[in-house]
Amino acid sequence: MPTTTRPIIAFSGSVLDRADALRSDPVALAALRGRGDARLLGMDGLEPVVSAAGALVWQAMTAAPDAELLFLGLDGDGAPHFAPVPQAGSTAPAASTLWSAVEAMAAPDLAAYAAARALGGWHARHRFCAVCGAPTVLAKGGWQRSCTSDTCRAEHFPRTDPVVIMTVEHQGRLLLGRQPRFPAHRYSALAGFVEPGETLEEAVTREIREEAGLTIRDVRYVASQPWPFPASLMFACHAYTDDPAITIDTNELEDARWFTRDEVAEAMDARAQGRDGIAFSAPTQVAVAWHLLDIWLHGAG
Amino acid sequence: MPTTTRPIIAFSGSVLDRADALRSDPVALAALRGRGDARLLGMDGLEPVVSAAGALVWQAMTAAPDAELLFLGLDGDGAPHFAPVPQAGSTAPAASTLWSAVEAMAAPDLAAYAAARALGGWHARHRFCAVCGAPTVLAKGGWQRSCTSDTCRAEHFPRTDPVVIMTVEHQGRLLLGRQPRFPAHRYSALAGFVEPGETLEEAVTREIREEAGLTIRDVRYVASQPWPFPASLMFACHAYTDDPAITIDTNELEDARWFTRDEVAEAMDARAQGRDGIAFSAPTQVAVAWHLLDIWLHGAG
Ligand SMILES: [Zn+2]
Ligand SMILES: [Zn+2]
Repeated sequence: MPTTTRPIIAFSGSVLDRADALRSDPVALAALRGRGDARLLGMDGLEPVVSAAGALVWQAMTAAPDAELLFLGLDGDGAPHFAPVPQAGSTAPAASTLWSAVEAMAAPDLAAYAAARALGGWHARHRFCAVCGAPTVLAKGGWQRSCTSDTCRAEHFPRTDPVVIMTVEHQGRLLLGRQPRFPAHRYSALAGFVEPGETLEEAVTREIREEAGLTIRDVRYVASQPWPFPASLMFACHAYTDDPAITIDTNELEDARWFTRDEVAEAMDARAQGRDGIAFSAPTQVAVAWHLLDIWLHGAG
Repeated sequence: MPTTTRPIIAFSGSVLDRADALRSDPVALAALRGRGDARLLGMDGLEPVVSAAGALVWQAMTAAPDAELLFLGLDGDGAPHFAPVPQAGSTAPAASTLWSAVEAMAAPDLAAYAAARALGGWHARHRFCAVCGAPTVLAKGGWQRSCTSDTCRAEHFPRTDPVVIMTVEHQGRLLLGRQPRFPAHRYSALAGFVEPGETLEEAVTREIREEAGLTIRDVRYVASQPWPFPASLMFACHAYTDDPAITIDTNELEDARWFTRDEVAEAMDARAQGRDGIAFSAPTQVAVAWHLLDIWLHGAG
């Protein structure tokens, strides 16, 4: 049983103070941009520019004074950190090179990148007002967009989509499934978006019934993770079932199966060594599903 | 110590099967609308039409065959339930008459109304494509809107905003605050929107630091609640602090104070009798904050 601290959940652990009071103060924001210790995140669209050492690249503030920037916050020394606003329509999925960069990146870098990517992607997809169709403009250091129509003036805020991702247990075995888009042999926790008018626990119950045909009980919240592809907040949960007969929704899943504790443990050991397990290929440590499996095996301590 | 079952969290407990597979099937949706047992929710904009007995009014399907409707799901007898789409711009806050109606309504009615109001309000505020500004049209029984521009074709999905709402404990006392818009004497749990790039626990930590100036530890998820005003998902949490010195953000709060267990117990007893407590006026049972206080006093059993 490992006694070391559990690894941090990827994309969490920001060391920046978001200093939200400054967002509403245009004079203060302009002063922050002009400071000698101001830093601008290197981004290529929504992808991070990464140094040879695998870190984010924080550049001196070279942006034009009137360029649109996202204010991410202040570091421990009070230095302001900004990110660029990507071009409209930057909705491309994550580049294939992103995942190796992400796996190598330190937690504070990943967390800053998560905020920059989720917020930047939101700006790229919200250049117009959903209420009236008029153009919108950036406001409050990037934490708002405002409609330019005098008759509308709607204020829009960054969107974060709650998603449930869950393991189900039956007599010591764990339910995992695979989507067609997964890497070969990969199985992971089932997942789906929370819908209007349901609790977290009801969303978990509905998704497991829809995707695997199982009736569950005792849904328990385990952990959460920001997932900026494009703007999810993952709620990892664990539940139990008394009837293990699976009926797969073939529109969502290619397969779903029960795995023994030994199979999960072997697959997670193999993952730690950078290879696939025998029964299945475990999720990478970047995914909160990895934490669900790790906590199931070893506890949350 | 009460041994009865805890009251259900308001707006949860739907008895409708959302039958998501039917949403993508226009032929099946049209057949559902044409059935003799199809029911249409009585709505006045975003407000519920309520019977003399305080229940929702489910009408026979009188809507024109080409009217836009929201497919809420199937009841236990398989009868399809629909809700109307409100007019564009129906963004008014809840009517003053709503809260007494809500407090009198049975759980399944409240849950159906929560879905209808959150989903309907989303349609009213999303008649245009945020990506390109072109008009959007309803799709998939109301669970999607699609851009009408041939060069865009963006698909939009209902928005749900995660919100944290939390109590903080210090040496047996509980932190509660009041916003200027609260009823007189009311104190409740502090709350705020989750932002891109943070976990639930990080959002709780940030909000308590911003609004009350407290450093907290041991954040614990307690419960969740759909809150369709307009489209929140409330995540109720509990945390602890070792330093009770409060610094209020006067932009957000009018006051925040520590209350003893006896004060909270008296205020909750008073609330059960329909009156305000001595130290403060407790939140109504409709709010998940009521559950936070109840569970703090009596446990989750
Ligand atoms: Zn507008
Ligand atoms: Zn469009």
